[in-house]
Amino acid sequence: MAAEPVVSFRTSALDDDPVFAMHRGGKISVQSTVEVEDRAALAMAYTPGVAKVCSAIAEQPELASEYTWAGNTVAVVSDGTAVLGLGDIGPAAAMPVMEGKALLFKRFADIDAVPICISCTDVESVVAVVAALAPSFGGINLEDISAPRCFEIEDRLRDMLDIPVFHDDQHGTAIVTLAALRSAARVVGKAFGDLRVVVAGAGASGIAVSKILLRAGVGDIAVADSKGLIYAGRDDLTPVKAALAGETNKAGLAGSTESALRDADVFIGLSGSTLAESAVAQMAPDAITFLLSNPDPEIHPDAARRHAAVVATGRSDFPNQINNSLAFPGVFRGALDVRASTVTENMKLAAADAIAALVGADATAEYIMPSQFNERVAPAVAAAVASAARADGVARK
Amino acid sequence: MAAEPVVSFRTSALDDDPVFAMHRGGKISVQSTVEVEDRAALAMAYTPGVAKVCSAIAEQPELASEYTWAGNTVAVVSDGTAVLGLGDIGPAAAMPVMEGKALLFKRFADIDAVPICISCTDVESVVAVVAALAPSFGGINLEDISAPRCFEIEDRLRDMLDIPVFHDDQHGTAIVTLAALRSAARVVGKAFGDLRVVVAGAGASGIAVSKILLRAGVGDIAVADSKGLIYAGRDDLTPVKAALAGETNKAGLAGSTESALRDADVFIGLSGSTLAESAVAQMAPDAITFLLSNPDPEIHPDAARRHAAVVATGRSDFPNQINNSLAFPGVFRGALDVRASTVTENMKLAAADAIAALVGADATAEYIMPSQFNERVAPAVAAAVASAARADGVARK
Repeated sequence: MAAEPVVSFRTSALDDDPVFAMHRGGKISVQSTVEVEDRAALAMAYTPGVAKVCSAIAEQPELASEYTWAGNTVAVVSDGTAVLGLGDIGPAAAMPVMEGKALLFKRFADIDAVPICISCTDVESVVAVVAALAPSFGGINLEDISAPRCFEIEDRLRDMLDIPVFHDDQHGTAIVTLAALRSAARVVGKAFGDLRVVVAGAGASGIAVSKILLRAGVGDIAVADSKGLIYAGRDDLTPVKAALAGETNKAGLAGSTESALRDADVFIGLSGSTLAESAVAQMAPDAITFLLSNPDPEIHPDAARRHAAVVATGRSDFPNQINNSLAFPGVFRGALDVRASTVTENMKLAAADAIAALVGADATAEYIMPSQFNERVAPAVAAAVASAARADGVARK
Repeated sequence: MAAEPVVSFRTSALDDDPVFAMHRGGKISVQSTVEVEDRAALAMAYTPGVAKVCSAIAEQPELASEYTWAGNTVAVVSDGTAVLGLGDIGPAAAMPVMEGKALLFKRFADIDAVPICISCTDVESVVAVVAALAPSFGGINLEDISAPRCFEIEDRLRDMLDIPVFHDDQHGTAIVTLAALRSAARVVGKAFGDLRVVVAGAGASGIAVSKILLRAGVGDIAVADSKGLIYAGRDDLTPVKAALAGETNKAGLAGSTESALRDADVFIGLSGSTLAESAVAQMAPDAITFLLSNPDPEIHPDAARRHAAVVATGRSDFPNQINNSLAFPGVFRGALDVRASTVTENMKLAAADAIAALVGADATAEYIMPSQFNERVAPAVAAAVASAARADGVARK
C-alpha cells in the first residue's frame, strides 16, 4: 500500500522455482467480512458501537462464540522442533508448514486457522503460552512438536482448557491409519480382532496409532522403537512407552521389527527406517503394509506389493494415500459446530469410521481411502464427530 | 460446512440490534491466497514441496519475511484489562475490539492483523507470551492493557524483540494528538514552542501524549492525574509519573487541572473526567481544547467552543475528530515495508507530521485533521515512517 515499495524482491532467483514462487508473501491472508466504508459503519464495527458487544460477552461469556470469530478459529501451534522430516528447524522455518495447514483448514472445512510458531520449547513455557492464547480460539491444533514433550504438552493443555486440543501428528495420523486399516481388512477379508500388527516407530504417531488400534479392537500389536521391540520390563523405556508395553506385544517378543513380522498381518511404518523385501515376504498371506514415512517409504511400494495384498503410503503418486488432511479438517469442523469442550476417544473413532465408510464396500486393493479432494469427506467426518461429541456429553450447543 | 447445523442461533433476539447482527460470527476471516485444487498444487503448497521452503528459511532466516505471511502480519494483543471505557472485562470480551482493529489494519493498510486476547495479566506472563509469539509476526500492536503495567510490558518487549512493538493506546494517541496540535497551532497562529499545555490524565495515553509533545518542542506541559497536578517531589508518584514530573510543570504548580488552565493555551483531556465551562473561559485567548475522553467528552464541544478557538474530540459526530486509526495502519505499514526492527521516536514524530501535512495550510478551526476515510493518509504516514526508519538505521530492507 505504500506509494513506493522500497526494494523489490520479485527478482529473487529462488522464485525461478515454482514452489518458492507459490510461497512468496505467504499462502494466507486476513480479510474483513463486514464492509466499513463510512463513519456510520465504522461506528458500529468499532468504537463506540463495539462496546455493547464487549459488554454483552463480559456478562454472558458463551456469546463470544457467536459474536466473535473465535468460534470458527483454530490455532495451529508449533515450536518448530519436529517439522516434517526436517527435525528441529525452529519456529520461523516451521511457518510455511503451519500456513499450509491453515490453508487446508480453510479449503476443506471453512475454518479460520491461524499459524502460531512459538520461540520457546520447554514444556512449562509451551503449555503456558498456548493456555494463554485459548480465549482467542475455538480449538488448538498442536503440530510438529517433538516426542516425548508432545505427550505431556497435550495432556496438560487438555486438562487445563475447555476447548479441543488435538496434536495432529498423533491423532490425525491415528485416525487416518485406523480408517485405512478398516478398509484394508475388509479387502483381504480378515476380521479386525484377528489382526496381528507390527508398528515400526514409537514417536508421536507410532504411539497414537498403536493406542487407537488397540481401542478399535485389533488382535495384538508389537511396537518397535529405534532399539527394537518394546516389551514389558525392557529397562530403557520412557513412561509413555512403558505404559504401551503393558497393553501390547502379548507374546513378549524382543528383537527387531523384522523378527516380529513373521506371520504378521499388518506392518505400519512410522519411523523413517527401511524395511527389507525379505521381511515383507515372511508376513502372513494377504498381508497389509502401510509405508507411511515421508518422503521416502520404508520400502518401495512396488517391492512391497510383490508380497503384500494391500500397500498404502503417505504419497500422492502411489495408490492408497493415507494423509492427515482427510481427518483434521472434519474433526475440528465437527468439534466447532457443537462447541465441543474436548476431543474424546469416541470422536476420533467416529472420524475414522466415517472416512472408511466413504469407501465402504467399494474398497479394493488399490482403493482403500477416499481422495483428499472428495468434498464429502470433511462434512461426513464433521457430522460423525459432532454426533460422538453429543453422545459423550462434551457438546455445548 | 457440517451437513446439518445443530442449533441455529440466527434467531437470537440480540440480532434485532444491527450492531449485534454486524458482529455475528466475527468481523474477519482467514483466506487462502493460493489455489489448491489438485494434488500437484497441494504437493507444492504443502508436503512434500513445502519442505524446501522451510529448509531455505532455516538456513537464511531473513527469507521468512519473503516466503511466509509473517512479513505482512501484526498481532493485536490485549489482556482485556483496559478495554475502551469498559475497564477490565477480560480477554474474551475484548475480542470484538481487537477484531475491529484487525479490520482497520486491513482496510487502511492491507496488513494481515490477528487478534490475540490472552488470559494472563501479570507482567512476567504477558511479556513471556508475547515474546514467544514473535516469530509468527512482523509487528506487535499492544492494545487496551492497563497502566502502569503497559509501560513495563512494552519497554521489556521492545528490548527483547527485533520487530516493532507499539502500544497503540500510548503512541497512536500521541501521534494523532501531536498532528492535531500542529494543525490547531497553525490555525490560531501560535508558535509551537510558546504553547503552554495542560493534560488531564496520566494513564497510558496521557503519559505518551505528554512525552511526544515535549519531544516535539511545546513550551511547557502540566499533567494532572486523579489526585491533581503532577510536580517534582509529590510523594505519591509512580516511577513513570516521577520521571514525567522532572520534565514537565516548570512552574511547579500543585492543585487541580482547573487551576492550571488559567492562561493556558491548550487543554488535552484524556482522563474521562469532566471540565467546567468556567475553566475553559479562563484559558488564554485563542485557546485549543482537545476533549478526547470517549464516548463522553470532558465538556460538551459546543460549550467549549464558546470560549476556545479550536475544539476537537474523539467523536465522529463533531468536527475535528482525533482518532488513532489515522496513525496505526500507516505506522505499521511503513515499518513492515522496510522490515523495521523497532519503532523509534523519530518514526512517531514523522507519522504525526505526515498527518498534519495532509491538512497543511487548508487548516481551519473546524478542519484540523484529515478524514479517517482519506485514502492518502495511510500511504503518506507509511512513507514518512519508512523514511524515518531508514534515517534512524532500523530498516532492514
